[in-house]
This record gives sequence, structure tokens and C-alpha cells, in this order.
Amino acid sequence: MKKISLIIASAFMAVSGLSAQESIHAPLPTMSPVVTDSSTVVFSLTAPQADSVKVIGSFLEEPLMMKKGFGGRWYAETPRLAPDLYNYRLEIDGVTTVDPANPYLMRDIATQFNIFIVPGGKADYFLPADLPHGSVSKVWYRSDSLAVDRRMTVYTPAGYETSGKNYPVLYLLHGMGGDEDAWNELGRAAIILDNMIAAGLVEPMIVVMPNGNATQAAAPGYTGEGLILPDGMRSVAPAGKFEQAFPEIVSYIDSNYRTIPDKAHRAITGLSMGGGHSWRISMLFPEMFDYVGLFSAAVRWNGSGVADPSDTEAGQNMLRRQFELNPRLYWIGIGKEDFLYDLNKNFRNDLDRMGVKYTYEETEGGHTWTNWRHYLVDFLPLLFRENAE
Amino acid sequence: MKKISLIIASAFMAVSGLSAQESIHAPLPTMSPVVTDSSTVVFSLTAPQADSVKVIGSFLEEPLMMKKGFGGRWYAETPRLAPDLYNYRLEIDGVTTVDPANPYLMRDIATQFNIFIVPGGKADYFLPADLPHGSVSKVWYRSDSLAVDRRMTVYTPAGYETSGKNYPVLYLLHGMGGDEDAWNELGRAAIILDNMIAAGLVEPMIVVMPNGNATQAAAPGYTGEGLILPDGMRSVAPAGKFEQAFPEIVSYIDSNYRTIPDKAHRAITGLSMGGGHSWRISMLFPEMFDYVGLFSAAVRWNGSGVADPSDTEAGQNMLRRQFELNPRLYWIGIGKEDFLYDLNKNFRNDLDRMGVKYTYEETEGGHTWTNWRHYLVDFLPLLFRENAE
Repeated sequence: MKKISLIIASAFMAVSGLSAQESIHAPLPTMSPVVTDSSTVVFSLTAPQADSVKVIGSFLEEPLMMKKGFGGRWYAETPRLAPDLYNYRLEIDGVTTVDPANPYLMRDIATQFNIFIVPGGKADYFLPADLPHGSVSKVWYRSDSLAVDRRMTVYTPAGYETSGKNYPVLYLLHGMGGDEDAWNELGRAAIILDNMIAAGLVEPMIVVMPNGNATQAAAPGYTGEGLILPDGMRSVAPAGKFEQAFPEIVSYIDSNYRTIPDKAHRAITGLSMGGGHSWRISMLFPEMFDYVGLFSAAVRWNGSGVADPSDTEAGQNMLRRQFELNPRLYWIGIGKEDFLYDLNKNFRNDLDRMGVKYTYEETEGGHTWTNWRHYLVDFLPLLFRENAE
Repeated sequence: MKKISLIIASAFMAVSGLSAQESIHAPLPTMSPVVTDSSTVVFSLTAPQADSVKVIGSFLEEPLMMKKGFGGRWYAETPRLAPDLYNYRLEIDGVTTVDPANPYLMRDIATQFNIFIVPGGKADYFLPADLPHGSVSKVWYRSDSLAVDRRMTVYTPAGYETSGKNYPVLYLLHGMGGDEDAWNELGRAAIILDNMIAAGLVEPMIVVMPNGNATQAAAPGYTGEGLILPDGMRSVAPAGKFEQAFPEIVSYIDSNYRTIPDKAHRAITGLSMGGGHSWRISMLFPEMFDYVGLFSAAVRWNGSGVADPSDTEAGQNMLRRQFELNPRLYWIGIGKEDFLYDLNKNFRNDLDRMGVKYTYEETEGGHTWTNWRHYLVDFLPLLFRENAE
């Protein structure tokens, strides 16, 4: 048997990478990036023929020029970075693409970005750890009103399968251009939930991440359009019907999962367009949610084609009625540089005039996933707790 | 309200892409690649500063040189390609990375590849269609014998949630270097299952894709190692314990899903190392599976550290006993150029000498995902059918 093992081992090594064998044992590229102990980040790339290599990332005021060293190896090191999840791409001789040495990617609409994490603080919640994990499922539900099967992502907490318990539910909505993958990929929702639940900071809960684009059945690559980039991928116009159809989703979840199907055990939040959705859905169905979050929300945004009720007497009455039902939490978060800042400020002024209670968090920065991940970390511990009232 | 809509629309368009706002509405790159009506494939890339751009793919005997045209736009067109799923990467001035215009990727160990599909024939099963879809879940089970929580991928067929029925189960095992993501990402298992079940060609079934590396809890990026590339990512040495521990997985599935928990309703198959696992597991637990598949299988491979029973009298007896229990299907598939071809041939010779029945499919090509996807398409219709006996 020893002989056969050796023959196979050699054959594995000899795999050519072209048509006859799968190149599964080619050498790994050198690791890039490396997060140093002093929280700087070192990027490297072997590119002897390249004339120019840059790192482009939202954490850089301007592209970071890499320097060519021995053997055509390029290097660059960032200044010390605050703990967080960062994304970047490389520009190689004018072409912006991903770092071939970093297989950890996240997709934002039609673009893939590399990611890395500088640990510490809230960023530790973004790193997977060896502790009890929830399940993440891609499931399809029938939307009768939209007359199509639609895909959603559902997180069930560790122990769900065997506990026999019923759980509260958070509906977590993405923004314009996003889809049912966004909160889990860009937002790292399941990893955050696993970590914060295991730490005892967050109640075990089901988290539902539907596709908020009424004109889109599922994320690109999962519909009958195949691997075409649909035009709609650029920016799926919200068709307004998503909000009215929302009870279908709640009904599907309450029918297929062990939920606690009442107002006190339902939360809804979303970012940008999904914040607008959360604002509108919670107003349209005020007896459905006791917890509402608006992350950089497109409140009072008419882009959805639905007449905005908030500037009419009827609309003001809807909002008033929602608050008469005493939601336990109405949470608003936005960055000082967010282009929706003024819209949110006006909305808060109206809430103040109405004399209703809400929680407000104002942060640095703008309309970014960095903020949205942080808002999720701040929002989750407030849900479904006795003392949240 | 009209005014507010316009302001927001403009703000979305003006997003700068750097620190303050997320660049979610940057223009899409021009689509690449384009599969033409005549089944050629056109690649394009804007790279005015580049001196050399090539397409590298397993379907190309040698890299396809792209030609520079007007405006620094590079083009190349393949010859007519047979219907199939293909993967490729671009080499830009000597750096091999992904095509920035194509967001559809699949990861093989630590490398991301772009994919495209030339439709027709079996390849149509690789394309998502608008028909009933199963769910795909990433779940964690406790392995007592390996003393760790481990991740697996579970496909449940369309209608599972509401049918109340019990289903047969296929255990689908990856190869060396793979993990619990491999069959669904590289193998497109869920899409194939959806398509073939909807076409009435395949019985609705649960498909379980565990992680076959006994030393690895989950795919890279989902363990406590975080976003480090573990050394083990290159080639996770099979530790042998996976095979012995397999009943844990079956037990977890039978406890948590509506299965038909008997031999007649269980199948196991895998590719390469996973074919070796299927060979060994079905022999170790001969009353567990009525359907066994070996795809380019590392049969009689001692790399796992487990003494190979097949060259001992005891081992031959195990195999004989497995066949005395009359498995309904023992299916072997391999390509003529596969480096495991001779090993499989010797194994078949032994089966012939034993006078037992098996099904054999010999194809062109080698040790490739192209073959493994095709084998899955050929294998699935043989499972759990009355007439398969």
C-alpha cells in the first residue's frame, strides 16, 4: 500500500493545471495582506512586468502606491488603522481588480472587493470564532402579490434545531443595489449574531434578510437570467410593492419557523433604501413591530413610487398612530457626512414636534457599510430585552 | 415630494466612492465575457496602460492572447466551445487575477476563478431557471469523535418546508483541498438538483455536503482562524477519522430532517478523495447505503492514514460482504486521462473477479470539475427509483 500512496502523492504534485487534471495543488500565493501587530497592513504582489501597482480602499484618502522591490515583488504598508473590517482592490497598470493573493471577497452589486479585518473593539464581532454557530439558509418563498418565487436569507441561532423553543424575529433589510446576500456578506450578520449571542449580549433570535427589490426574484446569478449581468443589477428601482407585500414574508416566516408571532417579538431595520422600507413598513403595519431601526435611512423617500404619506395629514396620522401603539424602540442612526443627513434631521424634528420617544445615534462618516455594521452591533443588544422598554 | 425624490436621486448619482459614501452606484464595467450565439466567447478589458493581457482557462490549450484595440480596450474571442461551465482568469502584465467585469466567481482552495456557461446539453442544468427551488443551508453539527462543531451544506428540495413528506438522502463528498462549499459552488449541486427535479428526471431528495477534512471544522473564513489563510488550506491531509465518524453525520441528518432513514433511501458519492471516502464508508457501514458512487475516486488510497483493508483478506471480505447485501447501484466514473485511472482499473478488475455488478462510465478528460459535474448529472437520475434495481 505504501507504494500506491507514493504514486498518488506524486501524481497530485504533478498536476499540470491545464485540461487533464484540476490544478488543486498549485502553490498558494504569498499571503496578502498581512495585518501587523501594530495594526498597520502590509500588501504585497509579485508583478515583475508591472509599471504601477496601487491599493484602492475606502480607508485611504488617496490610492496607496506600492513600491517595487527585489524579484518584481511590490509592497506597501498602511498607517496604523483603527479596528474594523476594510475592503480594497488593487490597481495594476491601470486595471482595478482584486488581490490575487486574498481569496476573501465580498460582492457589492457587480463588483468584487477584497476584505481584511484589523481586530479589536467592535471588529472582533466581525471575526468568526470557535463558539456555537447559527445556521444560514437560502430559502425561496412564494410571493402571491408579486407572482414570483423569491429568495431570502434566514439565520437561525445556535441550538434552534434542537431547543424546541420559539424565537423572536428581526427583519434586516438591505439598501439600493443590494439583495438578499448583502447583509450576510457585506454586513457579516451571521458572524456578528453568533459572536454577540455567545457573549450573552444579544437574545437568540431568527434574522430574516429578504430581497427588497420588488422587481428582482433573487440575487444576480440565481434567477432565470443566468450569469448575465442584468441591467437591473446596477440599481434596481424599488417598485414600492415590496412594502405592501411585506406581510407575506412575515407570514412565511411565522408558518415555517418557530417564532413568537407577536409585536413584542418582532423587529425591523434596514439601511438606506431598507431604512426607508423599515420606516414605511412599520408605519403601514404598526401592530406588527415593537422594534424599528433606521440606519442611514431613506425616510420619506418617494423613489419607490408609493405616495409618501408623511407630508399629508393622513400620513402624519399614520405615524402618530404607530407611536400611540408604543413601540418599545424606534432607533435612528446616521453619520454626520451622510448625504441623507438632512432628510433624517427633518424627520427627527417632526418626531420631536410630535413629542414621541426615539433613540438617536450620530456617528462620524457617511453612507457606508462601515457604519451599518457598527449600527447593527449597537442595535442588536436593544432588542427583545425586558429592560429595553 | 417630487422635489425630495429628485434631490435624493441626484445625491445617489453623486456618490464619490471614497470614505464618505458607499460607491454603490458607480457605473458597471462593460460586460465580459459575452457568449455569442455561435458558442464562441468574447472577452474584453479596458487597460490602456497594459502591455499584455491573456485569458487563462482550463478550456484553452495555451493562454489566449488578447489584442489591444481603440481606447486601450483589449479583446479576444475563443473558438466555438462545447456546451459547459468553464472557468478562467486574466493575466494582466504578468499578474494572474480575475476579470474585473465578471462578478461570477468560484473559489477553489485559495484561488478565485471567473466562470461562464456555454448553454446547451447538460450545461443547461448548470444555469439557474425560474422554477421551484430547494433551500441551501449552512448548518453546524457537533462531532463528538472529532470534539468540534463542524459545518456542512444541506440542500432540501422545493416543497420540503410544507410537504410533510419524508425524503431520501444523498451524501455528496468533496475532494482533497475542497470543503463543505465545494460541491455547491464549484459543483453547482443545488442548481443541478433544482433543474433535474423540476424536469422530473430526479427524485426529490435531501443532499448533504459535509466537510471531509477531519482536521478542519469549516471552510476557510468560517473558523476561529478568521481571515488568515491556514496552511492547511493548501491541502488538508485527510486524517482518516472522517470515515469512521461518518455515522455521526447520518445521525444528525436523520434527527434534524424528515428523512427516510434506511438503506434503500441513502446514497453516498464523492469525487477524488471524496470518492475514496465513499468507497471506504460504504464498505465500513455496508447496511447504510444502497447507492454508492465513485467519481474519479481515490479508491484504495492510504493517504488517509487508515490501513487500507482492500489488500488484506479481511478487507476483501468487507467488500464481499457489502456486495452480499446487494447495493442497488455501485457506480464508477472516470476520465481516460485521469491520473487515478489505473487505480480504478485495478479496482474494477477485482470487482470483476468477485463477479459483482457495478455500473461504469468512462469519459474523455481527466481529474476535473467538468467531469464531476457531468457525473453528478448522470448519477442523480439513477437514485431512489423503483426501476433502478
